[in-house]
Amino acid sequence: MHKVDLNCDMGESFGSFVVGNDDALLDFITSANIACGSHAGDPSTMKKTVRKALEKNVAIGAHPGFPDLQGFGRREIKISPEETYDLVVYQIGALQAFVKSEGGKLQHVKPHGALFNMAAKDPDLAEAIAEAVYKIEPELILFGLAGAELVKAGKKIGLRSANEVFSDRTYQHDGSLTSRLEKNALITDHGMAVDQVIRMVKENKVKTVQGLDIPIQAETVCIHGDGATALEFAKSIPEALKKAGIQVKPIGEFLGR
Amino acid sequence: MHKVDLNCDMGESFGSFVVGNDDALLDFITSANIACGSHAGDPSTMKKTVRKALEKNVAIGAHPGFPDLQGFGRREIKISPEETYDLVVYQIGALQAFVKSEGGKLQHVKPHGALFNMAAKDPDLAEAIAEAVYKIEPELILFGLAGAELVKAGKKIGLRSANEVFSDRTYQHDGSLTSRLEKNALITDHGMAVDQVIRMVKENKVKTVQGLDIPIQAETVCIHGDGATALEFAKSIPEALKKAGIQVKPIGEFLGR
Amino acid sequence: MHKVDLNCDMGESFGSFVVGNDDALLDFITSANIACGSHAGDPSTMKKTVRKALEKNVAIGAHPGFPDLQGFGRREIKISPEETYDLVVYQIGALQAFVKSEGGKLQHVKPHGALFNMAAKDPDLAEAIAEAVYKIEPELILFGLAGAELVKAGKKIGLRSANEVFSDRTYQHDGSLTSRLEKNALITDHGMAVDQVIRMVKENKVKTVQGLDIPIQAETVCIHGDGATALEFAKSIPEALKKAGIQVKPIGEFLGR
Amino acid sequence: MHKVDLNCDMGESFGSFVVGNDDALLDFITSANIACGSHAGDPSTMKKTVRKALEKNVAIGAHPGFPDLQGFGRREIKISPEETYDLVVYQIGALQAFVKSEGGKLQHVKPHGALFNMAAKDPDLAEAIAEAVYKIEPELILFGLAGAELVKAGKKIGLRSANEVFSDRTYQHDGSLTSRLEKNALITDHGMAVDQVIRMVKENKVKTVQGLDIPIQAETVCIHGDGATALEFAKSIPEALKKAGIQVKPIGEFLGR
Repeated sequence: MHKVDLNCDMGESFGSFVVGNDDALLDFITSANIACGSHAGDPSTMKKTVRKALEKNVAIGAHPGFPDLQGFGRREIKISPEETYDLVVYQIGALQAFVKSEGGKLQHVKPHGALFNMAAKDPDLAEAIAEAVYKIEPELILFGLAGAELVKAGKKIGLRSANEVFSDRTYQHDGSLTSRLEKNALITDHGMAVDQVIRMVKENKVKTVQGLDIPIQAETVCIHGDGATALEFAKSIPEALKKAGIQVKPIGEFLGR
Repeated sequence: MHKVDLNCDMGESFGSFVVGNDDALLDFITSANIACGSHAGDPSTMKKTVRKALEKNVAIGAHPGFPDLQGFGRREIKISPEETYDLVVYQIGALQAFVKSEGGKLQHVKPHGALFNMAAKDPDLAEAIAEAVYKIEPELILFGLAGAELVKAGKKIGLRSANEVFSDRTYQHDGSLTSRLEKNALITDHGMAVDQVIRMVKENKVKTVQGLDIPIQAETVCIHGDGATALEFAKSIPEALKKAGIQVKPIGEFLGR
Repeated sequence: MHKVDLNCDMGESFGSFVVGNDDALLDFITSANIACGSHAGDPSTMKKTVRKALEKNVAIGAHPGFPDLQGFGRREIKISPEETYDLVVYQIGALQAFVKSEGGKLQHVKPHGALFNMAAKDPDLAEAIAEAVYKIEPELILFGLAGAELVKAGKKIGLRSANEVFSDRTYQHDGSLTSRLEKNALITDHGMAVDQVIRMVKENKVKTVQGLDIPIQAETVCIHGDGATALEFAKSIPEALKKAGIQVKPIGEFLGR
Repeated sequence: MHKVDLNCDMGESFGSFVVGNDDALLDFITSANIACGSHAGDPSTMKKTVRKALEKNVAIGAHPGFPDLQGFGRREIKISPEETYDLVVYQIGALQAFVKSEGGKLQHVKPHGALFNMAAKDPDLAEAIAEAVYKIEPELILFGLAGAELVKAGKKIGLRSANEVFSDRTYQHDGSLTSRLEKNALITDHGMAVDQVIRMVKENKVKTVQGLDIPIQAETVCIHGDGATALEFAKSIPEALKKAGIQVKPIGEFLGR
């Protein structure tokens, strides 16, 4: 039977700056990527978000990002692989402490924003991140853009790596996402978005904007929490997947090496 | 035989802002309190400092402080016990990740600066800190001002608590340190400073500025790394203690419950 | 004819963290207190907020606060008067640059949160703030809690100081606000809130929670932008004041020395 | 008669993190670039540094940088021209407030580190910076790498732009500095460094690492404050220039449009 994980970014409030819709989204996802205090999140928000995820039996991942609160971790910062290793260890450690002290166990790590995008392309950054995750705990699962450098680096070092796909983004023939600067970057029709996911999971294929099918592994699907119809869409996905005969469960329960 | 631990604050550089004399001091101390990225320290400095301490067989502690880099964690911030708990979990977790990934084990936690001083007097803050430490790892040792609230809170929750004394500070008859705003706050004569420590360790007594002896537990001695003669003084202490028949070793090796 | 200014805190978003209801509120107020990048606000938010205020002919003030984004400047930090002076000069200067470069003129300064509250009671902090404002520009108006230390310090150094009152807060017999920790701190009935303002402006009196009238100067009224009914309430105030024969205009147009 | 300005970065301490050698260097330079609280500097350091510069009759410039204290503003951050404009206005405004409140006048603006380097090559960033400076005060002088985009952008908008040269760096045939990653990036021989400056000022030429002369405008020379022999070298430069018949004075006193 086909299986897939649904992940969503969470815990992105900072002090009095409350954002997101975590409580509602936790009902529809299987894995929560929790911000670690650099691009978003603060210690108090982290603890509360960990508690909520544990209450709803959603698996927990660390979501480390650049130390750029103002830019929300979305601006590229040219840092060395060693600096990258260091900031990833720091942030995973901080989140892991909350998970453990609340009686849970960290399942995965997914880099955020510009760090995620840079690690998809730059093998040195990807290896630095993979090494950080591995050194903290070899049982952790590393999330990366399906087929990209981060997934490869994770496998190379001996981690389980999860290929992540997007329901609402279009793909280029090289497997990369169409840049958000392009008109056709987003799939706004919910039906088409769901169909893309189902095909990726069941047939391991996706049709690119160039009109050709390419192979793709779909082990975890990124659910976006922001935007006007995000919640409605998030709610519809698990149902549609189940109807299509796909089991929705936390990645740690089915991903092999 | 009498035993005592010598601890010193370390890893207080931040990015290009390099301060302290860690390399030299690590030769004379048994426990290093490593800054965790809030009042000082950054991920890269943390990793390097952890590595150095492990190389020199110095036991490692987390040194969490207020999120106030500009004030170096020395300015009081009115925060709630819950916020205190959260920031302490965060910082210990971050440091612990570096210690573990470098193959070491965290020995202790010592709050920094204003947080240390506030936790000496405020039982609610003290309990919040003790709870954070305990929830992360009940085997950790909590450092606090000898006889003060933090030590009590640690014992109450089930942690080993270490009474910390100062060689170069004078004491008031209530066991508190003389404020640095007072003229007679500091002991500048090295011989007198060493004698004060030896007496605290062997006789469990210290003479206050009021001229009376008070009882005091001395399980770990704070060595200051800054100041013109700090290094010279730090160097002389372990020797003088050994001559006086006191064994100098990491607190984790001898502190009972 | 009686005159009064209506002020509101603005520009408190930070990067992607968008908060507040600035666009709507600017229609009902005469003076905007714009956050300066420490407790809230960032350079881009500051520019945009300055532009909006200028478009709507709302007078602009700097709203400096503690460097504590996570605590939104509401946590007391023990800083020296000199440090206070420095951070106030810094923040006013930064905002003033946006105001000038957009073709406007800074009207006033109102400290934020814990800094406002501390400056109401501590004459040294109050004088440091007043000196910072005066040194930057003696024509600036300094806002402070009606009758409190900051207003006095402003007048003493030669600034015009504006006595600020609150429509939705109750008063103690010493002229201080009832602590938010008390049950009767807030006036939730809009009619009573408006009546309190009208009486403060026209009769220079307010009834305290102890039931007695005390004298009070009301030159500017603080309008809160947050809360469920804030906007509705904000909208009703200028109308009610006009009906009561009170002219609503920017403080700079009527406040004497 | 040939004239040149000698500038140096100053005020780069942050809170307790004291760095640099400002007091000594102020005796040898004519223009101080003072950090504005983003890549380095804090409000208290800014005030003190402004005071020292005014006491020693050294002209003052703002030295805005990326909001990256940990990376000391040396890591490239991909920001938009508009964000760049905003952060430059913010930082200049903050410093200008200290200069004015201490009775001085801001002479120039020199971007720092990665921002300086990016603005040398990227015309959009260069124009954003030039516009920020111009909008704050058209009489300000903008410093940029000799011949590069920032100097052009300054002139285009109507500012006086100063071509900055380096005594201790080698040049490529396109006028750019040899990357510090190359072996021959630095000129460590003081005599050769001074000779390079003198030739740039008097003959408007510099010999590149490729061995050819290229034309170069030298209106202000960057003096480095860090490094073992920095102070000794800094001290020798003004003397050597005077001997060579070059007048050393603040750029504002001789730079035309």
